[in-house]
Amino acid sequence: MSEQNGTPAARRFRRSVGIIGSGVAALHLGLFLRQHGVSTTIYTDKHPDSIAKGRLLNTVVHHAPTLAREHELEIDFWLTAEIGIQEMSYHVGGPNPISFVGSFLPPSAAIDYRIYLPRLMQAFEERGGEIRMQILRIADIQLIADNHDLVVVASGRSTLGEAFPRRMDKSPYARPPRALCVGLFRGVRAEEPATVTINLEPGQGELIEIPLLSFDGLEQALLFEICPGSALIDLANVSPSSSPDLFRDVVLGALREHFPGTYERVDLSSFGLIRPLDLLQGVLTPLVREDWVRLPSGKIAVSLGDVHAAIDPMMGQGANVASHTALDLGRAILDESEYDELFAETVATARRPFVEAASDWTNMMLRRELPGHLLELLGVMPGNRALADVFTSNFGSPDRQWRAIATEDRARAFTATWADHAMSGAS
Amino acid sequence: MSEQNGTPAARRFRRSVGIIGSGVAALHLGLFLRQHGVSTTIYTDKHPDSIAKGRLLNTVVHHAPTLAREHELEIDFWLTAEIGIQEMSYHVGGPNPISFVGSFLPPSAAIDYRIYLPRLMQAFEERGGEIRMQILRIADIQLIADNHDLVVVASGRSTLGEAFPRRMDKSPYARPPRALCVGLFRGVRAEEPATVTINLEPGQGELIEIPLLSFDGLEQALLFEICPGSALIDLANVSPSSSPDLFRDVVLGALREHFPGTYERVDLSSFGLIRPLDLLQGVLTPLVREDWVRLPSGKIAVSLGDVHAAIDPMMGQGANVASHTALDLGRAILDESEYDELFAETVATARRPFVEAASDWTNMMLRRELPGHLLELLGVMPGNRALADVFTSNFGSPDRQWRAIATEDRARAFTATWADHAMSGAS
Repeated sequence: MSEQNGTPAARRFRRSVGIIGSGVAALHLGLFLRQHGVSTTIYTDKHPDSIAKGRLLNTVVHHAPTLAREHELEIDFWLTAEIGIQEMSYHVGGPNPISFVGSFLPPSAAIDYRIYLPRLMQAFEERGGEIRMQILRIADIQLIADNHDLVVVASGRSTLGEAFPRRMDKSPYARPPRALCVGLFRGVRAEEPATVTINLEPGQGELIEIPLLSFDGLEQALLFEICPGSALIDLANVSPSSSPDLFRDVVLGALREHFPGTYERVDLSSFGLIRPLDLLQGVLTPLVREDWVRLPSGKIAVSLGDVHAAIDPMMGQGANVASHTALDLGRAILDESEYDELFAETVATARRPFVEAASDWTNMMLRRELPGHLLELLGVMPGNRALADVFTSNFGSPDRQWRAIATEDRARAFTATWADHAMSGAS
Repeated sequence: MSEQNGTPAARRFRRSVGIIGSGVAALHLGLFLRQHGVSTTIYTDKHPDSIAKGRLLNTVVHHAPTLAREHELEIDFWLTAEIGIQEMSYHVGGPNPISFVGSFLPPSAAIDYRIYLPRLMQAFEERGGEIRMQILRIADIQLIADNHDLVVVASGRSTLGEAFPRRMDKSPYARPPRALCVGLFRGVRAEEPATVTINLEPGQGELIEIPLLSFDGLEQALLFEICPGSALIDLANVSPSSSPDLFRDVVLGALREHFPGTYERVDLSSFGLIRPLDLLQGVLTPLVREDWVRLPSGKIAVSLGDVHAAIDPMMGQGANVASHTALDLGRAILDESEYDELFAETVATARRPFVEAASDWTNMMLRRELPGHLLELLGVMPGNRALADVFTSNFGSPDRQWRAIATEDRARAFTATWADHAMSGAS
């Protein structure tokens, strides 16, 4: 019956969807809808050229399920075989340091969004999608909705998100739990095989190293997550354009002092930010907003991507959640012909476990002190490669990850499941 | 990753599940768990022999998805080819009567639960399940939970359901909207091909005719749903054991007066209840209860079947929802190793759209007056067999049905989807 009930509707209705935003959520949804013949317009205030020539947007890793969706959407323009990230290397500081490696099965990949987003915008237009450039304010949501059967708000961290009330039950932070500093650096030797390296330095913050495809091939991204009150805070405050030497000294000092595993791969003679715009400094207060609102006209507006859930970049979940929920929403749009409260609630219910897991997991990692059961779990990983591989691959399946680590009992059961694999990876 | 993360746990953990109840929800769950090697105990106060020799339990139709689950569970002991119900015949009375036929694609089937449940209990025991017969009170939920990793309460309409708070948002009826009288009758010629006949008599109630496999082969069930204040109320009040002739006269009078399409297939010389116990009279207040509660010990108890959602039998949804959610719960039990709040909420979120659709749809049909948009939709069916077939087959997919008919706009879109099939069935 699923065919009978869905297909003729998809053929017959001249549906039209308006998407506000041009990030990964907006573009994956737009490309999916075009792939299925739905009339789709993207509204954005960002020209592809200004994205390409602009400041670094993020350094997000796309995990295997996202790469699979890119294949489905026929936007796998970059060869994963060449840029694939095979492993994740973990280092937890403190009195009892922990180090181990896990594999992404299958590999992940990271691409500079200044390359990625303009190429997807081009593909969207080539495939019959319309892009309208305009200034966007909250009041435009209603105006855009008037021209479409459904409007989706996926405008990243713009103020348009405020149209959707914040969910207090899933937004535990009133202030940013970290300051952020992320840049592309030369003079840092990449690990082999290609590896995401995550360093957790209790009380100070985290450093995540990511081999990322940028304008000159694979470059090394350093993402510093800085705890309030940490000595690392200069990383977020010193401007490399007004004080380039001081900024370089601050980064080198931070690496030498707190992240020696990275520091020992630094070539001091060549080390530095690659291009002035290859740096992003700022803060983010993670939050989850309502899935939908009813506009004054009675129509529904659905939130998507960062507008729905702004997730700290530490665990690399934001883009993967955006892509996952974009295609979920796309399928619901095809499956239905009425975009009413029942539609919106169906979408909300279906995506809730995935989104909340990514958000809850990341928010747990952002606590000032990691919960004991998580440290205990990380502590057994050096002796159990199978467990480390599952934990690493679960970065692509935050719902699975959260079910494995949410509580002490769950972490214990997760460890027990893989107990007889212990040491199998040490040989 | 799904295999890696799930399979070893399923193998390693010696999980044990306790199920309170021995209806279709309890048995489908129990048989599913045994099929996957989970230690399972059913607690019931009903001996299979007393079920077999007792009063008619219901006359529920199993739709195609339920029959498919029975095949999966290897309990398809009855040949659908011989007892399959091909069509549904609709008759709506009132000033502008409507009559039409739709097909179940694929066919449905109905079996007397006095045959069905004891055979499933036997299969459950043959496959290593344990059945404990005992008196059951609410306090026993905690005692049973102490012996298992998870307890599921699926004890039909017993008082144990009261352990789960009623959800006011999904339980619109404070009193039973119908009185019920259902029996197996001889002397009613079945329609051909095998057909469920539903008669809606505005203000009076409904008669649903079901060809059902009982002890002597296919017999004809008459399910009367009686509105408060209707002249049909004697059907629920007159006892056939104390006043057999009066009861027969009341049934014949009801058919002659309100359901002439059935009356004209009655052979007056042989008409009557087949066996004294082939009749059930009573009332049901439909309601939805919470998905789970935390027991005093901290363990979780999950509601299932009628305990979770007691659905009026008019649309034949109860058993199908019970079976659907039983296997959903079974899969979640295999997928997880910790039966905590996160587990319970995952189960609740996953089953919500299906259960609420079946409940909301049935509750809409129970209104004193059918909504105009539904009458309008039924009114176009006589000229559009494709639409009638989808509507009929959707009895097995209440989520699809509800999305098609919940609102005026949706019903209009549903009709429009099939507009160019109009008259195709009339040739």
